[in-house]
Amino acid sequence: MRRLVNDGYDVVEEMLEGYVRAHPEYIKLDPNDGRVVLSNKISEEPRVRIILGGGSGHEPLFLGYVGEDFADAAVVGNINTSPSPEPCYNAVKAVDSGKGCLYLYGNYAGDVMNFDMGAEMAAEDGIRVETVTVKDDIISSKNYEDRRGVAGDLIIFKTAAAAAAKGLDLDAVKEATEKANRQTYSMGVALSSSTLPVTGEAIFEMADGEMEVGMGLHGEPGIERTEVKPADEVMDEIMGHLLDESELKEGEEVFVLINGLGGLPLMDQYICNRRVNQVLEEKGINVHKSLVGNYATSMDMIGMSVTLVRLDGELKEYLDATCDTPHFTIK
Amino acid sequence: MRRLVNDGYDVVEEMLEGYVRAHPEYIKLDPNDGRVVLSNKISEEPRVRIILGGGSGHEPLFLGYVGEDFADAAVVGNINTSPSPEPCYNAVKAVDSGKGCLYLYGNYAGDVMNFDMGAEMAAEDGIRVETVTVKDDIISSKNYEDRRGVAGDLIIFKTAAAAAAKGLDLDAVKEATEKANRQTYSMGVALSSSTLPVTGEAIFEMADGEMEVGMGLHGEPGIERTEVKPADEVMDEIMGHLLDESELKEGEEVFVLINGLGGLPLMDQYICNRRVNQVLEEKGINVHKSLVGNYATSMDMIGMSVTLVRLDGELKEYLDATCDTPHFTIK
Repeated sequence: MRRLVNDGYDVVEEMLEGYVRAHPEYIKLDPNDGRVVLSNKISEEPRVRIILGGGSGHEPLFLGYVGEDFADAAVVGNINTSPSPEPCYNAVKAVDSGKGCLYLYGNYAGDVMNFDMGAEMAAEDGIRVETVTVKDDIISSKNYEDRRGVAGDLIIFKTAAAAAAKGLDLDAVKEATEKANRQTYSMGVALSSSTLPVTGEAIFEMADGEMEVGMGLHGEPGIERTEVKPADEVMDEIMGHLLDESELKEGEEVFVLINGLGGLPLMDQYICNRRVNQVLEEKGINVHKSLVGNYATSMDMIGMSVTLVRLDGELKEYLDATCDTPHFTIK
Repeated sequence: MRRLVNDGYDVVEEMLEGYVRAHPEYIKLDPNDGRVVLSNKISEEPRVRIILGGGSGHEPLFLGYVGEDFADAAVVGNINTSPSPEPCYNAVKAVDSGKGCLYLYGNYAGDVMNFDMGAEMAAEDGIRVETVTVKDDIISSKNYEDRRGVAGDLIIFKTAAAAAAKGLDLDAVKEATEKANRQTYSMGVALSSSTLPVTGEAIFEMADGEMEVGMGLHGEPGIERTEVKPADEVMDEIMGHLLDESELKEGEEVFVLINGLGGLPLMDQYICNRRVNQVLEEKGINVHKSLVGNYATSMDMIGMSVTLVRLDGELKEYLDATCDTPHFTIK
C-alpha cells in the first residue's frame, strides 16, 4: 500500500486531530461531538448557518471549507460513509443563531437518510433546517433528481455561504443555492482506484493504461472503460457531454472548475484546462473565472473532472465574494 | 501511464497555456518570452522585485506563487531542468523598477549556472540582481552550502516577498531571506517515483510497499530504503533528524509545513501533521501556524516532507503578511 497511515480504522480520528492541530485559528471540534468541525470565525450577527457534510476521503472537501464567510460547520463521516444523524443534529445545535440552518451535501442515499434524521431532531427543538443536495454529476443519471454530487459541491457550497453572508433568509438562501445547483454540470474520468486504508487494497481493479469515463467520486461506474487517451481527446469527449447537457450558448458566461481527484499532477490538470478553454472559446462561451486543483478528491485516485457553471449576475457575485478557510480563500 | 497529457514533449507549453487561461487576473506570459510568467498585480511603487524559477514538474511551485505581494515573475524550465539564461534575464528586464531584483530558487547546479548567467546579462544593463538559493533539505548534504531546496522554497520565497513589499532595499531583503533560509529545515520520504510524460515511465523503480527515507524532490537518493512503516514511526524518524539538526529548544516557536509530493492523500498528510505536532508538544516547542497540502510537488510522486521553521518576530511578520496568488492567498 502506498499510503502513510497508522491503523486503518483510526484514519478519520487521526486526520481530525491533525486538522485541528493545523488550523486552530479557523476551526475547532465541537466539544460535544468529535465528528463536528466548527468554525472559529462564525459571524457575530445572526445568519442562516451553512452546514456541510458527508463521508471522509474527499479532503479538502468538506472540512477544508469551514471558516470565515464560508461553511459554519462540517459533519464528518467514515470513509465513503455518511455521518450518523447525531452529529448532523449536533452541528445544528452548535451553530444555529435563530435564523435556521442549511444542510449541504452530495446527493447520496446514506447522506440523505442521516441528514434528514438530523433535521427532524432539530425540528423537535424548534430549529428549522432546510437541505440542498448537490446533483452536478451529469453522467450519474438521466433523471436530474437522482444525480450525485461531485466537484460541483464547492460551487454550490460557496453560493449558499455567500447568500447567507449577505443576510438572506433561509428560504432565499435555499432558492439561490438550488438555482446554482441547476446551473452546475460536472463530468469526470478516473485512471486508477483509490486505496482503502483498512484493507490496503484498491476499491476496484483498473490496469495501468485504462480509464473509466464518467466515473463517480467513490468509483461508481461511468459510461465506458477504454485505454487512456490523449488529454485533448478526453476533454473533447467530456466537453461534448457537458455542452449537450447544459445547452450553453454563444455569448453565455461560465465559471470553470478543473478538479483533481487526488493523484493526478497539477501539470496535467492545467493541460486539461487548456483544452477546455479552447473548446469554450470555439463556442463563443466566455470564462469568468477558473479554479484548477484538488478541491474534491477520492484520496489517491488518479483522475479529474470538469465542472461548468452557467453564470448570471447573482451567481457571479456569490462566487466572487470574499471568504477565508484553510483550503479556500478569496481576498 | 496514469497521466493525462498529449505529446510528452509539449507538456510545459501546454501547461503554461492552461495556466494563463485559468488565471488572467493574476498573471500573463511575458510577450517577449513564453517561459516567463509575469504578475498582473505588480506593485505600482518601485520595489525590489522577486523572481522565482526552476524546472517544471513541481507545480504549484513556482508559477503558482506569482501574483500580488508575492513573486513578481517566475522563470519556467523543462521538467526537472533549469530554465536557460535568456528567460532568467528577460524576467529581470520585465519587472525591474530600479530597485534591483532577487532571484530565488532551489540550490541545484543547473539553476545556479543559468540564473547566474541571467544576472550577469542584467548587470551589463546596469540592473543589480542578487540571489538566494534555498537549502532546506537537511539530508541532501552535511555541508549547509551544498544542500538542495525542497518544500522550504515556499517559506523562503514568502519571506523575501514580504520583505520586498515592506519596502526594504535589496541588501536588506536578501539578508532577511538568507536568515529565513538558515532557519528552515526539511526532510521527506517517497513511496513511489514520479512518471515522466515523455517516456511514460517512472524515473526509478520502487515496489509497492517500499519507502525511500530522505529522498529529494526529483528522486535523489535518501539515507535508506525500507518497507513502508506506520505514519507515526515515519514522522518520529523525520522529527528526530529535524530536531537534531535544528537544535530547536523548549519554548521556541515554529512554523510547520507538511508538504505533499503529489500523490499522497491530504488525509495522510493530516495524519502526519498530527504526529509532528504531538512530538513538538512533547518537546515544549510552540507551533505558530501550519500549512498542510501540495505546495511543492514532484508530479505524481507519492510522498511528503516535513518543514520546520524557527521563528522570530521578524519572520512571523513576513510569513503572516497578506498576499494573493492562484495557489497561495493570505487574507
